[in-house]
Amino acid sequence: MSIYLHDIPLPEAQARLEKALKDAGRWGVLGVEQIQLDESALGRVLAEPVWARISSPHYHAAAMDGFAVRSTETVGAMPTSPRSLVYKSQALYVNTGDPLPSLFDAVIPIENVEPLDEFGQPAPDLRRPYAIRIRAAVTPWSHIRTMGEDMVATQLVLPAGHSLRPVDLGAIAACGHDSVRVARRPRVAILPTGNELVPIGESVKEGDIIEYNSLVLAAQVNSWGGKSNRFPISSDDFDEIYNKVKEAAKDHDLILLNAGSSAGSEDFSAQVIESLGDLLVHGVAVRPGHPVILGMIRCSESAGEIPVIGVPGYPVSAALTGEIFVEPLLARWLGRQPLKAAKVTATLTRKTTSPGGDDDFIRVAVGKVGERLLAAPLARGAGVITSLVRADGLVIFPRGSQGLPAGAQVEVRLYRSPAEIENTIFTIGSHDITLDVLAQFLAARNRRFSSANVGSLAGLVALRRGEAHLAGSHLFDPKSSEYNLSYIRQYLPGMPINVIALVGRKQGLLVNKGNPKEIRALNDLSRAGIIFVNRQRGAGTRVLLDYQLESLGISPDDIQGYNQEEYTHLAIAAAVASGRADCGLGIAAAAQALNLDFVPLFDERYDLVIPREYYESDLLAPLLEVLQEAAFRHTVAGLPGYDTSIMGNLIAELN
Amino acid sequence: MSIYLHDIPLPEAQARLEKALKDAGRWGVLGVEQIQLDESALGRVLAEPVWARISSPHYHAAAMDGFAVRSTETVGAMPTSPRSLVYKSQALYVNTGDPLPSLFDAVIPIENVEPLDEFGQPAPDLRRPYAIRIRAAVTPWSHIRTMGEDMVATQLVLPAGHSLRPVDLGAIAACGHDSVRVARRPRVAILPTGNELVPIGESVKEGDIIEYNSLVLAAQVNSWGGKSNRFPISSDDFDEIYNKVKEAAKDHDLILLNAGSSAGSEDFSAQVIESLGDLLVHGVAVRPGHPVILGMIRCSESAGEIPVIGVPGYPVSAALTGEIFVEPLLARWLGRQPLKAAKVTATLTRKTTSPGGDDDFIRVAVGKVGERLLAAPLARGAGVITSLVRADGLVIFPRGSQGLPAGAQVEVRLYRSPAEIENTIFTIGSHDITLDVLAQFLAARNRRFSSANVGSLAGLVALRRGEAHLAGSHLFDPKSSEYNLSYIRQYLPGMPINVIALVGRKQGLLVNKGNPKEIRALNDLSRAGIIFVNRQRGAGTRVLLDYQLESLGISPDDIQGYNQEEYTHLAIAAAVASGRADCGLGIAAAAQALNLDFVPLFDERYDLVIPREYYESDLLAPLLEVLQEAAFRHTVAGLPGYDTSIMGNLIAELN
Repeated sequence: MSIYLHDIPLPEAQARLEKALKDAGRWGVLGVEQIQLDESALGRVLAEPVWARISSPHYHAAAMDGFAVRSTETVGAMPTSPRSLVYKSQALYVNTGDPLPSLFDAVIPIENVEPLDEFGQPAPDLRRPYAIRIRAAVTPWSHIRTMGEDMVATQLVLPAGHSLRPVDLGAIAACGHDSVRVARRPRVAILPTGNELVPIGESVKEGDIIEYNSLVLAAQVNSWGGKSNRFPISSDDFDEIYNKVKEAAKDHDLILLNAGSSAGSEDFSAQVIESLGDLLVHGVAVRPGHPVILGMIRCSESAGEIPVIGVPGYPVSAALTGEIFVEPLLARWLGRQPLKAAKVTATLTRKTTSPGGDDDFIRVAVGKVGERLLAAPLARGAGVITSLVRADGLVIFPRGSQGLPAGAQVEVRLYRSPAEIENTIFTIGSHDITLDVLAQFLAARNRRFSSANVGSLAGLVALRRGEAHLAGSHLFDPKSSEYNLSYIRQYLPGMPINVIALVGRKQGLLVNKGNPKEIRALNDLSRAGIIFVNRQRGAGTRVLLDYQLESLGISPDDIQGYNQEEYTHLAIAAAVASGRADCGLGIAAAAQALNLDFVPLFDERYDLVIPREYYESDLLAPLLEVLQEAAFRHTVAGLPGYDTSIMGNLIAELN
Repeated sequence: MSIYLHDIPLPEAQARLEKALKDAGRWGVLGVEQIQLDESALGRVLAEPVWARISSPHYHAAAMDGFAVRSTETVGAMPTSPRSLVYKSQALYVNTGDPLPSLFDAVIPIENVEPLDEFGQPAPDLRRPYAIRIRAAVTPWSHIRTMGEDMVATQLVLPAGHSLRPVDLGAIAACGHDSVRVARRPRVAILPTGNELVPIGESVKEGDIIEYNSLVLAAQVNSWGGKSNRFPISSDDFDEIYNKVKEAAKDHDLILLNAGSSAGSEDFSAQVIESLGDLLVHGVAVRPGHPVILGMIRCSESAGEIPVIGVPGYPVSAALTGEIFVEPLLARWLGRQPLKAAKVTATLTRKTTSPGGDDDFIRVAVGKVGERLLAAPLARGAGVITSLVRADGLVIFPRGSQGLPAGAQVEVRLYRSPAEIENTIFTIGSHDITLDVLAQFLAARNRRFSSANVGSLAGLVALRRGEAHLAGSHLFDPKSSEYNLSYIRQYLPGMPINVIALVGRKQGLLVNKGNPKEIRALNDLSRAGIIFVNRQRGAGTRVLLDYQLESLGISPDDIQGYNQEEYTHLAIAAAVASGRADCGLGIAAAAQALNLDFVPLFDERYDLVIPREYYESDLLAPLLEVLQEAAFRHTVAGLPGYDTSIMGNLIAELN
């Protein structure tokens, strides 16, 4: 059996699925359930309109505690010329909600009445007087909730397709229903496949992949109103997958087969679908996620034809396949409108290229810096699930677009509310582990701390472009033997800036446990057999390294791995821990994190560079507070290699 | 025991509760649970930060299907000068996700390789060749996902206080966790009290109130992350309520006592709280909802002090009390930020007064008409739950504000997404039951149909002010014997307008079943003993009535009830059905809805008056389609008294 992987444009792929579902009679609400009107109805989607069975109120009701009267008998009552009404025949006490006694047409609130006894004195029982004295006339139907004030029997209360909220449940009960007809929840089978997969919680060895796509897909399905069912992991075996799909087809409305959707030697999804029905689409021109498969299978007369989606294995591809294909399908089956993200226009912070042949879904962080909304592209890799975790929205570069330059205006589909975006502190520049701790402390103060690691110098450049609220920097200037200030003067001339010390820290060489290659100093980097891993150009650590190499007269050409660049201290540590390199320059905390040894070489200062307009803003006030907080200082001091004595000190006010 | 009802400003009431909870040690996360990392974790709130336990990937992994190689051995390969690498020693086949074999440092995708047999011919097994031929060099670490590319062990993945979304579950699993520590869900007891209450589903007689506040509150609590527990209805009996509260206090974190929070003869909430602890607040200056009670009770040593909220009985008050007091409390107990509605600025369509002493929560419909966002105040009554169902947002008039004029700019806290607001057709003017049917058909076409019943004439005035996309109108002009056109010319001079017929319909007298008072014609309205109920001034039906009365020489002064005004046909029917009036002028469908008899008198035409700019808009296109649709026509024709032959006809294009 031959397998072809074509990149079909997204609308064409969707149209093929729609047509196949229409042909199969599955392009609408799958079924209707009558359910009890209780808390479990929350979030269910109405399959039919709700019409009022009874009016609400269903009788004329007193709107206040007081006395029911006939309005005609109150005519003429004035402050100076009161009228008396005899209890029972002319006035009757009612509580709020009591039915209006017949032949009465108004209620006077108890506070506007003088209850009297038979001698014209204040009555001992306010609610059972001999008579009441009133000093104002009332209009008919005053202080009465007339029958049907809220809803009149037979009127439309809620349309079909409406997702039930708490107040809706109340309104449905109020107009006389004790059950509600809702769309049946679509049943979705999720079948993880792959020899390399291990379930969550089992120990992993090299080559094992923790199987969590089924968890993400199941949670998506449930949050969109479906009912997910995660199957155990299948191995890469045609017969096993074939049989499981056949089994799942009996009592599910949709099967998600993950992964095996590509065209590799162990990719059986397409073959299984072809054996059981029709392969509609193999490959969609979306990025990430293009090896999506769409098919229809027929396994039994009773179940009829049901759709199968072959979901790509990379986690970002899998989650986006859920958003692009599964959510709209569930919406159709539930009779509700598909979810629509709020859209905003933002400024792209970086030049971003796109292959042109695909609809390219770029994850972006979104923040408001000054008056501008910014969209900062996150990691593009389909394997980087944290790019979705950190994403505030998606920017879609359509097929045919080759990308956009920095500064371009783009439409962002938001994952977060605009209120959350407004609470986001956009940080850029150098990476330090302390920033993770800071993020945690700020979260408790209703601030999201979104940091992009681009290196110290690029951070200053970003500040100049107005692309962040602050930048972390540790740029050493050998001429002045100072940190940061000369660079700020050079890169941010004239901009009012406050420089605040975050920490003092040790830079040194990260080496494997026990330092097997006996690396003691920068001189060792040019030794034969030593592989180095470097930080990217513009990083403070790189500036430091290059300065020190120059002082020592070591040529970069003599260092193996000098051109291997990583963007964070932890990435340097990971490269060493994994054996990719023997050493790298970085901070002590990164060494400890991955259980490496650390060869201390230099002390340096890490500052926060903050334009004054943000330094003085409400947005950053909690950050400045945290820097003065003992608990924060204490947590950072607990990490290795940090000196917190200078934390929060104002180093300089420039311009 | 004396009960006082004071109106305490909202911030002061909240501060008293906060202080009491702090004193009781209940102003923070109530407890931490370690739960399995599965679908059930969705929506739970992290009690602690998640730090990566292992890196992801936790080894160097092939990013493509292809051959692992040493990059140094590819140097010099070019299209015109290929290099061959021997299988096993120089190249090894890897699938995507496989670990990089040791001593290799790059992967070449299979499509860029020529697998050869020992004779230099294409190998029969692509994946087990004798050698591979390549025509380009590769850089080190290309097509490899390096260890830690996504997450490096020990890094911060998610902060405490974060509500878990589907992708978060994936990220947590990816970095080596199989469980997660989340805030315990606060347990909330909801105690409905009141002799007049009957459970949902039981038959009701006059004076009975269907108890659904507990359902709304329970659904709110669950949707905000709490765990609700609805108790059976208590009667208005101090001891019964006292005992139930004591019982609930044993194993709940919060008790909502509904209602009995006012100061009436059967309001025991405050007394019960005082008997068991401290009454902190009795009466808050918010509208609707001011008889809110806040208290702390101590029923057992083990449970300690727990808060009780006395929730007012009117449904709108109850639901808003949930939003104002319960949601922020649950947020605090879960360690998450309180929900924050998106805010927009809109133009108030009507003068709106406010008592000044309270924070006044006004429910509004929100729509975008032309370039303006409009906020149209809905019914103010605390008993009108449909005002919350229909509300698109809240406008808060703060204490001290006496209200605002029409045209004022107000801040709206939205209940709906801006995308839903953009899909809203704002209709105003005359009421017809057909509009409910139209709303239902439009919902299936992704349009919300928001209609305000103000009468035909007020509808035209609203169009002039740019406050609606269309208006329903049936204004008879005796001079021209035409409908609507002369009024449009007078009220909307120069505005390009299309007038579309919706239906022909019968107007007549709505009378009780069997017509006991033998009302046959308008002449009967002035008979002694006949009570009439009228439509409001400016309603088309009122214009028709006044014209006909004048023709017949009947003076309004001779008609009992002429000054009783209602705003809809169904309200007229409800007034007759409830015995408030003997008859009213209205349409046949309203009579049938409430099982009344109908005395047909006049035929009239009901039009949709649509400014051309909206007539031609995408927003209204589905509406014009529906008017041409057989299914819609058929549904309307099934209602009594309608002539659908003219439906959708273009009556006139003005200006």
